[in-house]
Amino acid sequence: MNKIITIGREFGSGGRELGRMLAQELGYEYYDKEIITEISKRTELSEKFVQQVIENDPHSLYPITIGHTFAYVHSHGIERQQAIFREQCEVLKSMAEKSDCVIVGRCADYILKGYQPYKIFVYADMDSKLERCKKRSDVQEHFTDKQLKRHIKQVDRNRAKYYRFFTGLEWGDKLNYDICLNTTNADMEKVVKSISKLFKD
Amino acid sequence: MNKIITIGREFGSGGRELGRMLAQELGYEYYDKEIITEISKRTELSEKFVQQVIENDPHSLYPITIGHTFAYVHSHGIERQQAIFREQCEVLKSMAEKSDCVIVGRCADYILKGYQPYKIFVYADMDSKLERCKKRSDVQEHFTDKQLKRHIKQVDRNRAKYYRFFTGLEWGDKLNYDICLNTTNADMEKVVKSISKLFKD
Repeated sequence: MNKIITIGREFGSGGRELGRMLAQELGYEYYDKEIITEISKRTELSEKFVQQVIENDPHSLYPITIGHTFAYVHSHGIERQQAIFREQCEVLKSMAEKSDCVIVGRCADYILKGYQPYKIFVYADMDSKLERCKKRSDVQEHFTDKQLKRHIKQVDRNRAKYYRFFTGLEWGDKLNYDICLNTTNADMEKVVKSISKLFKD
Repeated sequence: MNKIITIGREFGSGGRELGRMLAQELGYEYYDKEIITEISKRTELSEKFVQQVIENDPHSLYPITIGHTFAYVHSHGIERQQAIFREQCEVLKSMAEKSDCVIVGRCADYILKGYQPYKIFVYADMDSKLERCKKRSDVQEHFTDKQLKRHIKQVDRNRAKYYRFFTGLEWGDKLNYDICLNTTNADMEKVVKSISKLFKD
């Protein structure tokens, strides 16, 4: 069986960077946005649209029974999200069967449980997540710290809802993971060198 | 500054074993029950008594204002516990100043924060904690699984209350630790070899 590492991560914690570095250190495949690209190909929906659906709060898409139009729009939304989730499962499974790999996000820990993945969760305190976000080139300079913090919290709330909706489990609850890494003051290279030992014979 | 590793652990998670192995792997001092022994020496209270006070639920020792006798007994209890806690702080600090070390439990992560310890929390699912407890020679054979599970939960509840009382923080909340290790299906030797890399140059 291939070695699968899944990485759940708080927004701004550097979990994606850690995943990429870990894959590189181990010589594993690395999947992150590639998952969106593959779902997009299979469903013939744009990548942007797939990403939007995946990052949406699934509860907001529940069918509403008051008013026909609303009910239609929302049940259509939830069906679409579930269809995309089914594709996501297929895509992840085919990746897991192909080779050893590191997969970031997308409920991979849950979807691939039959493949006995090693499940990592990456988190950090708010100040360090804020600093990491501010260093990103795609963050508009005119955002205040307050706005950015609100955004960080919102992204994580959506991730938690999405995870709970499709897995029935609590996102970030340490019992769902093999190891949880606090990247607040972490030397990322050292962490990667250390953690990679778990996968080397 | 010496390298300090503190280990918080759920009862039955194997955190103590992990701490001992990690200290051995790194050539660090290892402190666990030695802390009780040292407090006992300083206070001239028996080790058993010190342990009992430390493992007691501190809330149960709050002074009660109805009835003079009760108020006396309880405030005496809380004073004694606080006096022991002060000794505990002194003992831990002197250990931290002596050499590199691994310290298990006793709020060492909080008490030694000025020494920038590396904070580990060790946890596992209930079934594996139960199995680990059953393997211990000091566990009476006539305990049922149900009784043992209740005991495991009770010990952890007391640890959580003790930690909250003296630190104001949530015991086991991953933000209070640098790394959280799930020992449910873990190969302890591999985990120790891997984690020890964080402390080697």
